[in-house]
Amino acid sequence: MSRIAEVRVTPILIADPPLLNLQGVHQPYTPRTIVEVITESGAVGLGETYGDTDYLKLAEAFAPQLRGAELVVNNLHTAVTQCLERVGAERVDNTVQAEGLRGSRTMGKIASSVASAFEVAIWDALGHELDLPVHALLGGKVRDAVEYSAYLFYRWAEHPEPDEPKDDWGSALDPDGVVAQAKRMAEDYGFSSFKLKGGVFEPKQEVAAARALAEAFPGQPVRLDPNGAWSVATSLEVAAALEDVLEYLEDPTTGTANMAEVARHTSLPLATNMCVTAFDEIPEAFKTDAVQVVLSDHHYWGGLRATQDLAAVCRTFGVGVSMHSNTHLGISLAAMTQVAATIPDLRYACDTHRPWQTEDVITQPHTFSGGKISVPDTPGLGVELDRDALAKLHQRWQESDVRRRDDAAAMRRVHPDFTAPKFPRW
Amino acid sequence: MSRIAEVRVTPILIADPPLLNLQGVHQPYTPRTIVEVITESGAVGLGETYGDTDYLKLAEAFAPQLRGAELVVNNLHTAVTQCLERVGAERVDNTVQAEGLRGSRTMGKIASSVASAFEVAIWDALGHELDLPVHALLGGKVRDAVEYSAYLFYRWAEHPEPDEPKDDWGSALDPDGVVAQAKRMAEDYGFSSFKLKGGVFEPKQEVAAARALAEAFPGQPVRLDPNGAWSVATSLEVAAALEDVLEYLEDPTTGTANMAEVARHTSLPLATNMCVTAFDEIPEAFKTDAVQVVLSDHHYWGGLRATQDLAAVCRTFGVGVSMHSNTHLGISLAAMTQVAATIPDLRYACDTHRPWQTEDVITQPHTFSGGKISVPDTPGLGVELDRDALAKLHQRWQESDVRRRDDAAAMRRVHPDFTAPKFPRW
Repeated sequence: MSRIAEVRVTPILIADPPLLNLQGVHQPYTPRTIVEVITESGAVGLGETYGDTDYLKLAEAFAPQLRGAELVVNNLHTAVTQCLERVGAERVDNTVQAEGLRGSRTMGKIASSVASAFEVAIWDALGHELDLPVHALLGGKVRDAVEYSAYLFYRWAEHPEPDEPKDDWGSALDPDGVVAQAKRMAEDYGFSSFKLKGGVFEPKQEVAAARALAEAFPGQPVRLDPNGAWSVATSLEVAAALEDVLEYLEDPTTGTANMAEVARHTSLPLATNMCVTAFDEIPEAFKTDAVQVVLSDHHYWGGLRATQDLAAVCRTFGVGVSMHSNTHLGISLAAMTQVAATIPDLRYACDTHRPWQTEDVITQPHTFSGGKISVPDTPGLGVELDRDALAKLHQRWQESDVRRRDDAAAMRRVHPDFTAPKFPRW
Repeated sequence: MSRIAEVRVTPILIADPPLLNLQGVHQPYTPRTIVEVITESGAVGLGETYGDTDYLKLAEAFAPQLRGAELVVNNLHTAVTQCLERVGAERVDNTVQAEGLRGSRTMGKIASSVASAFEVAIWDALGHELDLPVHALLGGKVRDAVEYSAYLFYRWAEHPEPDEPKDDWGSALDPDGVVAQAKRMAEDYGFSSFKLKGGVFEPKQEVAAARALAEAFPGQPVRLDPNGAWSVATSLEVAAALEDVLEYLEDPTTGTANMAEVARHTSLPLATNMCVTAFDEIPEAFKTDAVQVVLSDHHYWGGLRATQDLAAVCRTFGVGVSMHSNTHLGISLAAMTQVAATIPDLRYACDTHRPWQTEDVITQPHTFSGGKISVPDTPGLGVELDRDALAKLHQRWQESDVRRRDDAAAMRRVHPDFTAPKFPRW
């Protein structure tokens, strides 16, 4: 079996629309890291992860260690963790349990997020070496297509500066705007589940938007995710107001104890990608029945096998599993689709930001049919790197000083007094 | 990729020494089921599981369903379960939480045990197709050798009838006999961990045997496993008497609640292959901290990926994992070694009955060096079927009426009044 001959790590900046959330607004450009694992026989495996400096620095430090290694993954997390201990990270905060959009920012999560890109790239390379799709290497697909949901955002029509990326979605700042966005998502992509990113306006307005979605799409799943913006009391008010409408309520409040308190007093399942984002956060959350659905994300959790591990833990404890998304490109969407295809218990449509991304680094960006992506049986992830696109987006990174995602800073360009909120905001 | 062309299921009877346990004594011959999965291109994958009628009947009913299937495993458990619902099973008892040597005998456990043989055979066949060892298909080995422990038994010198299988180990019916057996195990195989199967004599005698082992092998791990024979009070007396001696105490008592009660009052870790033998038994046991080490067994749990899933669940909850063994041949030892090689958190030597088996169905039975088995990098499991041996052991099965393991019946041949004990025995 061919070994790893070379590993490339390429930072890029990709265009992102002005999507709103509790922390501010998406920047015009956001960093991602693209990983290529090239074998002695010339097979190329691709991976993708966060591009903030801490992630990039670790990926660049770790990449040379893989030269000469076999195409196996079980030791990867340990090796990346050891590398992180050596190179360190700047923006670590173990104490913040809830701030930010993905919970606390621990060393473990930085290591997992970086390991995931190499893990995916190794599976992809192995698939090309063996002429097998990644799902076959993960034990085989149990479905031929993976369903995704429409990821709805409150948003501005455009970024503040004239030379910044544009699209034709227009603004969405009230229930009518959200429903119009959802209708176009349903029409263009066939989505039949809808998730609204909340935490932007006061809860009453977001309740109205969720109800408007339910009225516009009767019987179809609707979810609301305010990223932990609410107190327990507010969460329970919203839950009561939407009990007949929502498929699940995602991270209404912050912290396991608060989530458990909300869960005790509502029949709505609570989903999370904030209070359970790593294996060491599971025991307390499951013991207190704080969450009923864990939103997996192969970046956070450390890769595709880690995602399967998470699914096994959730299955064992009778907790549902679905899939979270952060801004990502086609490599990650391919990886999400491959692993989702292998998890029997995935009973909810997965989240994806994909429709919001106008750029990609693969030659044939995915298309949705009926809200689903077909699971390819071609080798590896089933995608090919577009080297011209990669070079262009890397050049943008080189010419820019954007080195991390900072939604609050982006918001301050329009509202200079904006600060990221204290929790709970409402 | 080549598909499955043919599946063979062969029942055999293998010789077994007169090893004693709480339920009686091992029969002279015990049934096993050997599975062969043959691909269109002629690759052969091997699997092995229990041979009692319920397992054999299910394996024979399921085998034809695999014809034409791909070499993937993720749907296997569901398919075998559906097959079991169709063919049924005779000896099911969902209510017995503790009797027998492997806990309750549920439909789910019968399905998992049968699925495991096909799962291992599919991994083996896939490995031969791809020219890769099974461990590489499971994400890669994290160690080059797997450590096993000496599995010590109280035993008779021989079975009661003159024409029954013999060996030269002699009897072991007191502490001196156990230590002598351990010394030979250490000398012949290099084992440096020792597990004594208890529940045979009154606890005081078994405490003395464990202490004698600790004195004979100072500083080396010693374990005692009475298969749930004791009350909570007796368990605590034994735990207090052996707190300075044992690595862990295995299934001192039956049922999760009793195990939790014992765990609350001893510093000894409690291990189990009785109160946690399936995923649905985990939540209660982990919530109550009833067990500190789960002894995995790829037969019980449904295969190699299920074993990795179990390891992930245990890792998540800070529970240790090691490996249980029942009477088995070289195919299962190869499978145990392959999966054990991939689990980072395996920190205890695994159990194996292998030294007690004088027969095998592989051409080159494993050898131990320093108590370890090297992890082979040859394709698949790294073993080859000995067709002559298989035919001979199958012929024995055909000529015999032994169709299940029944240690109590075997004991009654010598002690006609023997009945399997009520719990707790002491």
